[in-house]
Amino acid sequence: MLTGVQVLLIGGDARQLEVIRRLSELNASLTVSGFDGLRTLPGDISNSELREELFDKADAVILPAVGTDDAGLIPAAFSDSELLLTDGMFSRIPKYGTVYAGMARPYLKELCQKHGIALVELFERDDVAILNSIPTAEGAVKMAIEHTDITLHGSACMVLGLGRTGLTLVRTLLALGAQVYAGVHRPEHYARAAEMGAKPFYTRDLQDYAANIDLLFNTIPTMIVTAQMIAGMPSRAVIIDLASKPGGTDFRFAEKRGLKAILAPGLPGIVAPVTAGRIIADCVTQLILDDISTRGNEQ
Amino acid sequence: MLTGVQVLLIGGDARQLEVIRRLSELNASLTVSGFDGLRTLPGDISNSELREELFDKADAVILPAVGTDDAGLIPAAFSDSELLLTDGMFSRIPKYGTVYAGMARPYLKELCQKHGIALVELFERDDVAILNSIPTAEGAVKMAIEHTDITLHGSACMVLGLGRTGLTLVRTLLALGAQVYAGVHRPEHYARAAEMGAKPFYTRDLQDYAANIDLLFNTIPTMIVTAQMIAGMPSRAVIIDLASKPGGTDFRFAEKRGLKAILAPGLPGIVAPVTAGRIIADCVTQLILDDISTRGNEQ
Repeated sequence: MLTGVQVLLIGGDARQLEVIRRLSELNASLTVSGFDGLRTLPGDISNSELREELFDKADAVILPAVGTDDAGLIPAAFSDSELLLTDGMFSRIPKYGTVYAGMARPYLKELCQKHGIALVELFERDDVAILNSIPTAEGAVKMAIEHTDITLHGSACMVLGLGRTGLTLVRTLLALGAQVYAGVHRPEHYARAAEMGAKPFYTRDLQDYAANIDLLFNTIPTMIVTAQMIAGMPSRAVIIDLASKPGGTDFRFAEKRGLKAILAPGLPGIVAPVTAGRIIADCVTQLILDDISTRGNEQ
Repeated sequence: MLTGVQVLLIGGDARQLEVIRRLSELNASLTVSGFDGLRTLPGDISNSELREELFDKADAVILPAVGTDDAGLIPAAFSDSELLLTDGMFSRIPKYGTVYAGMARPYLKELCQKHGIALVELFERDDVAILNSIPTAEGAVKMAIEHTDITLHGSACMVLGLGRTGLTLVRTLLALGAQVYAGVHRPEHYARAAEMGAKPFYTRDLQDYAANIDLLFNTIPTMIVTAQMIAGMPSRAVIIDLASKPGGTDFRFAEKRGLKAILAPGLPGIVAPVTAGRIIADCVTQLILDDISTRGNEQ
């Protein structure tokens, strides 16, 4: 339980409702801001206007997936107010407080550093990234079914990168009956792809595998699906790029060649906001519990 | 090869383009009607206006998935002309000719019977139904991902009926990491579902399993998802009914209770027209080949 623990949650989308629900179930002393557009909130929490006093005594400050923008604005799907995170607010967070966000831009990182406040970027964590790869893979599967006129079953799919998302995607596509070509850099990834029943190849040989691909899923965040690669692919092929913006595909060339190429980052919050919210909620509550218990032991 | 074999193909949608492509590759003497809206056809076939002479010497007459409507009209996605199948046309089909359609309404059945022409309903065939269950399952998966805010992975899915579609769907959902409750009538289906790792139950106990279901997929074409069943389901649940029209769900009650319930028959032609077309093409060309070779042996 989080009884007596002061948590301030600001902004975000449907995912944060799951975080609010979980914190409320665990009996945290919860203050939320950026939800004035909703009539009711989980656990009958009421919305507070964002102001400096809210940060006093905060054990944890929870920001949304993207943290803030470059100017310090916190995105909030359920509010029209401008939620600006200021230096004044940070100066009131106790030294033992921690700020949680999916990821952090320089603005947020610098504020935390300046005031000596711990910052946790949840999406950088392996466990969160692995769990988030499930809704990402399902979103990719949905898009693949939508944008082709063939079944995934029996189709020739290429997955570039066997990281956390790539691995889940390879498993999912194999399970659906696709032939999966897995493009990897490292011998251990080659071995893993082979063990899973995929057809591994090294990305240096990428070009050799272009000609017979129905679907290409990219997870590598550097330019890898180049004009040369696209020129070698059949015109029926569909590219789904899951790497963070700007992706790893020459989208301009794909369009010129008439190939369907879609950049689809951030699928978990779109495809399965409740599951994605539970992933964040599970992780953040566990981290707060750990933090409180460590602090208790140190005292 | 089908060299010298006279085939007349009338109407239909994108699926029939695959049939035309295959027949043309096999060098059949092919006449097509109902494609005047397309500039080009596979194999450089040109479209003919529908008239009685086309039926003379036809070894095979291929109609679309639904055959004709109750008045004898043949649906044609690529034509604005009215394609009416008449008694006069049937009187010109040779006695050794065969009519192929996905399914046949009484109008078509009666014409075939009257003129002693063999009729093959392709969708009645086990092999075609099993292969069609693949795009059906993929379409159902796509809809499930689209209409829920959770992942299929970890969700509680119920599949009613372990026929050709039910079996494929159970396998697919298990492969995606869902918990699958399979509602069956027959002990051998109960055994098969258990073997696959699903949680089988008899449909007489259906009501007992209603309370914790995220998704219900129905394949049974009689009223089984009743008002009583729906009343026992959580309001977050989504019903996807794959049984032929009118489905097996009390849609009116579902709407009244605010449950999302979708009737989705005929998914293969919508979700994967090329794959669905290839399934028809493979089957129909094999049947024509068999027919020709049997006829050859009898002579």
